[in-house]
Amino acid sequence: MGTQIDVLEAIRKKLLGKKLTYDEIYSIMDQIAQKKLGNVLTTYFAASGYSKGFNNKELYYLTKAMVETGEKLHFTGIVADKHCIGGVPGTRTTLIVVPIIAAAGFTIPKSSSRAITTPGGTADDMEVLAKVEFSREQIYKIVEKTNGCIVWGGSFRIAPADDVMIQVEEPLLFESYDKILVSIMAKKVAFGSNHVVIDLPYGEMVKVHRLKDAEVLKEKFEYLASEFKIKIKVIIHKTDEPSGRGIGPILETRESIRVLQQKENRPVDLEVRSLNLAGALLDLCIRDKGEEFKDKVKKKYGNSIGWATEILKSGAAFEKLKEIIKAQDGNSNIDSEDLKPGHFSYKVTAKKHGKVEKINSKNITIISKVLGAPGQKKSGIFLNKKIGEEVKKEEILYTLYSENLYNLKEAKDSVENFPVMII
Amino acid sequence: MGTQIDVLEAIRKKLLGKKLTYDEIYSIMDQIAQKKLGNVLTTYFAASGYSKGFNNKELYYLTKAMVETGEKLHFTGIVADKHCIGGVPGTRTTLIVVPIIAAAGFTIPKSSSRAITTPGGTADDMEVLAKVEFSREQIYKIVEKTNGCIVWGGSFRIAPADDVMIQVEEPLLFESYDKILVSIMAKKVAFGSNHVVIDLPYGEMVKVHRLKDAEVLKEKFEYLASEFKIKIKVIIHKTDEPSGRGIGPILETRESIRVLQQKENRPVDLEVRSLNLAGALLDLCIRDKGEEFKDKVKKKYGNSIGWATEILKSGAAFEKLKEIIKAQDGNSNIDSEDLKPGHFSYKVTAKKHGKVEKINSKNITIISKVLGAPGQKKSGIFLNKKIGEEVKKEEILYTLYSENLYNLKEAKDSVENFPVMII
Repeated sequence: MGTQIDVLEAIRKKLLGKKLTYDEIYSIMDQIAQKKLGNVLTTYFAASGYSKGFNNKELYYLTKAMVETGEKLHFTGIVADKHCIGGVPGTRTTLIVVPIIAAAGFTIPKSSSRAITTPGGTADDMEVLAKVEFSREQIYKIVEKTNGCIVWGGSFRIAPADDVMIQVEEPLLFESYDKILVSIMAKKVAFGSNHVVIDLPYGEMVKVHRLKDAEVLKEKFEYLASEFKIKIKVIIHKTDEPSGRGIGPILETRESIRVLQQKENRPVDLEVRSLNLAGALLDLCIRDKGEEFKDKVKKKYGNSIGWATEILKSGAAFEKLKEIIKAQDGNSNIDSEDLKPGHFSYKVTAKKHGKVEKINSKNITIISKVLGAPGQKKSGIFLNKKIGEEVKKEEILYTLYSENLYNLKEAKDSVENFPVMII
Repeated sequence: MGTQIDVLEAIRKKLLGKKLTYDEIYSIMDQIAQKKLGNVLTTYFAASGYSKGFNNKELYYLTKAMVETGEKLHFTGIVADKHCIGGVPGTRTTLIVVPIIAAAGFTIPKSSSRAITTPGGTADDMEVLAKVEFSREQIYKIVEKTNGCIVWGGSFRIAPADDVMIQVEEPLLFESYDKILVSIMAKKVAFGSNHVVIDLPYGEMVKVHRLKDAEVLKEKFEYLASEFKIKIKVIIHKTDEPSGRGIGPILETRESIRVLQQKENRPVDLEVRSLNLAGALLDLCIRDKGEEFKDKVKKKYGNSIGWATEILKSGAAFEKLKEIIKAQDGNSNIDSEDLKPGHFSYKVTAKKHGKVEKINSKNITIISKVLGAPGQKKSGIFLNKKIGEEVKKEEILYTLYSENLYNLKEAKDSVENFPVMII
């Protein structure tokens, strides 16, 4: 299926605003996945999507073709997943939600990305604790043993066309909503997930700026899910700042482990957000387990969030993460406080009394990257203050950490131009 | 003017369908001309033009910016030019029109392209007779000596952004009308032309398919010309077949020389077309030469076509071409019959009695390229029959020529699938 001429014709057709058939889209994806199309033509195809947009049917075809031109995983029964559309630095819920769901007895093979738009992707963070690159066969073994995994989505040839397209999209520094949608759903379908919660933050500083856009995107997620027979719940919420206080692989992972260990110094907002997501996902899963099961959960925990909370508070979730870490060749003997940020640090203090009005996530991303994240796992920012908190003059607002003195100096010089907090 | 960020922002803006300012377009063209933008981003910009189109103001900005980011030629007084938008194989009017205009005493520094969509561009054909690549200073000298030149438009840094854009457009095998327009007008402006005739063929087999599209394109040419203070005449005419019978550099050039030499075997349709174009261009030029001059021409030749005809028939045009050939380091001692096509030939004959109904220009292009044109100057096709001519069974329809036996064999095998003539 799909000669070079067909593909050219199809790209020209789309550039002029016509709709594509499944065969046309399959041919394009196939050539992209096989790296036969070349950068220029792949860019034309990407551009046609920005310019003219895709209708729902085309988005379905794109997702399906992206899946079909790569490898897939097959699990039986309920396969759970949760995914955040991203763009918020920090906020590492995956390391909390996955072990809760797996401890509840559901299969949750989680594929995560490395940093695209933030200073650390979930895969970068998990790498602090264990390996994240595995073959298909190894992933089957890990999930069989523990119910879950947290691996890098690019580990094997899963939706390979997506990876190629990301390369031509990067120079434009611009991700379309449709692109985010297709990219996420293709990976879910390829991983065989059939019960999925999507975390969809919106706000001035994240990928989706307006509630209206978030609602349109939600509907598209629901449409695609129904086409692929996936039970989905899309949770929209306004986001003005990271959940938790750590940004950068080590600092983010430490926050998640603090929640799992129920430490005093754990970030409560991250815990609440994780429990909400875990509860929503358990809800989806329970619905397909039969009346008896549902009744049992209701009687014992009140509702799904109650069950998730119990799993977290009892330590079962932390035990489960340790199992997964071990299965992924990591050291499961961990404590949050062993995760220490870089030696070189600098405290940014308040110049006046006041209240934190705003946190600029984009500048957090810029400064964290200057500090060396995500390549340097120990580099990043710790937010000593968050929105709404009172600060006195000279009090610490946030702390810069780096593995490298040069990076720290650069970041220190940059915070004037890229302010992280507004008081 | 124009940082990397400005340019990215502008490209994104255009991809989403907004209009660009001159500063934005200048910045984009500047980065493209300096080869700083990279293939992927240049492709996004090209794609934004296909998808959303440019309004007249933007087309003006594009043309102006393409000119301003490169080098220019400056001549004084009336500077004539004629240009065919291309897409018809053969039809080599330039080699006839340029010497007529130059012999009439007008300056005509002609920049020609190498083959883009046909088996030979005018520059490829002129190269049969003389050199076509010169520096700016050399071009001034040639034009000073002879009034004219026929050089390759890419000889020096003239509208360099156009050449870069052609590279990213080529993989798509698709030229937009706007692209043709801007590309041609930028070269005219950069060469300092102020009296221009545009030859705009339309038909099933050429670039512009419908009269309606040709009329829209004509208006855009007129708009741009008025912005640049260029006097223009756009001649629209339906085209079903090449003018003349030769396709490929040697065969095309031979046809033009036959016309200039007024040989018995010259193609009359090519002569008529060339005289019409030369007449129209003389008309434009005469209008700016004052009443006395106009009266003189009218009295002596009746009209501009009369004058062009006299210049051709008297042999003055042929003498002028020889002057130009000499100035361009060629051998001016030529006769059309010295121009011989490749040794290897194959005659395609009619399988039945009838009349030639149709000539497929696209297939002519394909077969000529298989034969080795334009790289092999002696390869090409000679049309023994043209549309409307009677053929007997077994009579020769057309002859394939090649410098190379392998190419000839390939072409011979291809004519079944890519028929050149329909009887």
